[in-house]
Amino acid sequence: MSVSRRDFALATAATLLASAAAAQEAGKAAAPPPSSSTPDHASEMPTGWMGQEQIAFLIYPEVTALDMVGPHQMLSGLMGATVHVVAKSLEPVRSDTGLVFTPSATFETCPRDLDVICVPGGAAGTIAAMRDDATLRFLKDRGARAKYVTSVCTGSLLLGAAGLLEGYEATSHWATVSLLPIFGAKLRASRTVVDRNRYTGGGVTAGIDLGLLLVDRLRDRTYAEAVQLMAEYAPEPPFNAGTPERAPPPVTRMIIDMFPDFLKEAAEVGRSSFERSRSL
Amino acid sequence: MSVSRRDFALATAATLLASAAAAQEAGKAAAPPPSSSTPDHASEMPTGWMGQEQIAFLIYPEVTALDMVGPHQMLSGLMGATVHVVAKSLEPVRSDTGLVFTPSATFETCPRDLDVICVPGGAAGTIAAMRDDATLRFLKDRGARAKYVTSVCTGSLLLGAAGLLEGYEATSHWATVSLLPIFGAKLRASRTVVDRNRYTGGGVTAGIDLGLLLVDRLRDRTYAEAVQLMAEYAPEPPFNAGTPERAPPPVTRMIIDMFPDFLKEAAEVGRSSFERSRSL
Repeated sequence: MSVSRRDFALATAATLLASAAAAQEAGKAAAPPPSSSTPDHASEMPTGWMGQEQIAFLIYPEVTALDMVGPHQMLSGLMGATVHVVAKSLEPVRSDTGLVFTPSATFETCPRDLDVICVPGGAAGTIAAMRDDATLRFLKDRGARAKYVTSVCTGSLLLGAAGLLEGYEATSHWATVSLLPIFGAKLRASRTVVDRNRYTGGGVTAGIDLGLLLVDRLRDRTYAEAVQLMAEYAPEPPFNAGTPERAPPPVTRMIIDMFPDFLKEAAEVGRSSFERSRSL
Repeated sequence: MSVSRRDFALATAATLLASAAAAQEAGKAAAPPPSSSTPDHASEMPTGWMGQEQIAFLIYPEVTALDMVGPHQMLSGLMGATVHVVAKSLEPVRSDTGLVFTPSATFETCPRDLDVICVPGGAAGTIAAMRDDATLRFLKDRGARAKYVTSVCTGSLLLGAAGLLEGYEATSHWATVSLLPIFGAKLRASRTVVDRNRYTGGGVTAGIDLGLLLVDRLRDRTYAEAVQLMAEYAPEPPFNAGTPERAPPPVTRMIIDMFPDFLKEAAEVGRSSFERSRSL
């Protein structure tokens, strides 16, 4: 494919991308697959740029909003995909910073066969979700068939509690990654860890990196780069404090000192939920 | 202050941070100022770590969720601050990727004197908001008295339309930054631009960097580093495509080709709103 033809294809695809996004914004059905009403454009678009994925983000009370919204913003750029925000009921759900989200689906109405399930983290809210059998049952069920089983931050504890990380390498928020062996997972203290179809991310902002990896996997490199450019993801953290190694020692110690109670309770609840989930 | 005393102060402050967050999560009032019910801890805490800021994020139909949630996550870490999500009414607001937020305040109930007002961006939704006199009037009113007037992405077009960037250096999403002179602003194509009390950020993910700059400004460097570490903000973008210069040329061209209609309409609406807002 010559450069000029390629450019033309990209530009045409961009038009489709924009109209698909506009259609979704307007609350209409997702853009039709290329073979139906957009034959002229579709013939110019790189194969595989239009998808039909079913993607679900779990939310629960006191979830950390950015854990979910980071990858949601990246995956919502997938033409033709349908992105669900799933909770126990359709009642509004309050995040740990007070943001209030209305779910789009429940454990019952969420599609049975998902391409991606993504579980964001939290603190007390994640422990409460680990205690909840309906949540574990939902994760175990959808996770067993999902093409990609993914998490951000302490969301990996929930995946683990549902038995979905047994035998897999995985990560979590840097302060909680030591809990993963409870669930039979092999911890790897990386910002993102991919082991077969398990994609786990580190704390909070790692979900953006994870989302771009998934866009690349579900489409291709060029598509992922376009999503990254649209989101102007060329980060310039104003301080060098994003990992426990880089932050000044007193800052790292301050944050570590916030975690003992959480770690103790998460370990206890995690162990018991992991065992219980086998028979759910 | 010796290192050990300093560490103790930080650890104590962390305890306060956690309980303030827990209190806010539970929907109670913000944690009381140090002089009232927490004198023992307060005496150990660095001066100025407990605040009383009133912070407001504007949302509107088809806002870009990550523009708002990035800095919201950072600013929500400010002990004692109250963070509002403000819209025209309390009806749920749908983002451009289908996330549904319930506002916590309206243009009428939002505090009159704000420490921070932050305006996230969008595409069609931002143009619609520029056309809306009630939105312009709200921004003009609160922006005139707010200690910090801030935006992420195309949110700067809304600030500009309300007359709040006249004579200031500012930035916007890289693809829209050329519109800023319409509003009497001096464009600076940076990821974050600080000019006196105006803090403007580039596209989408730049809001995280902007949020951390504001936390530093409202507290201190150590506090901002703690917020950064908690959010594990040590980004590792999987591709090198976050700016038009770094992305492969066909990718940059594809995204640029998506913008002409938006730029044309935003310029027209922006000019007329900027003029109209003088008499609002």
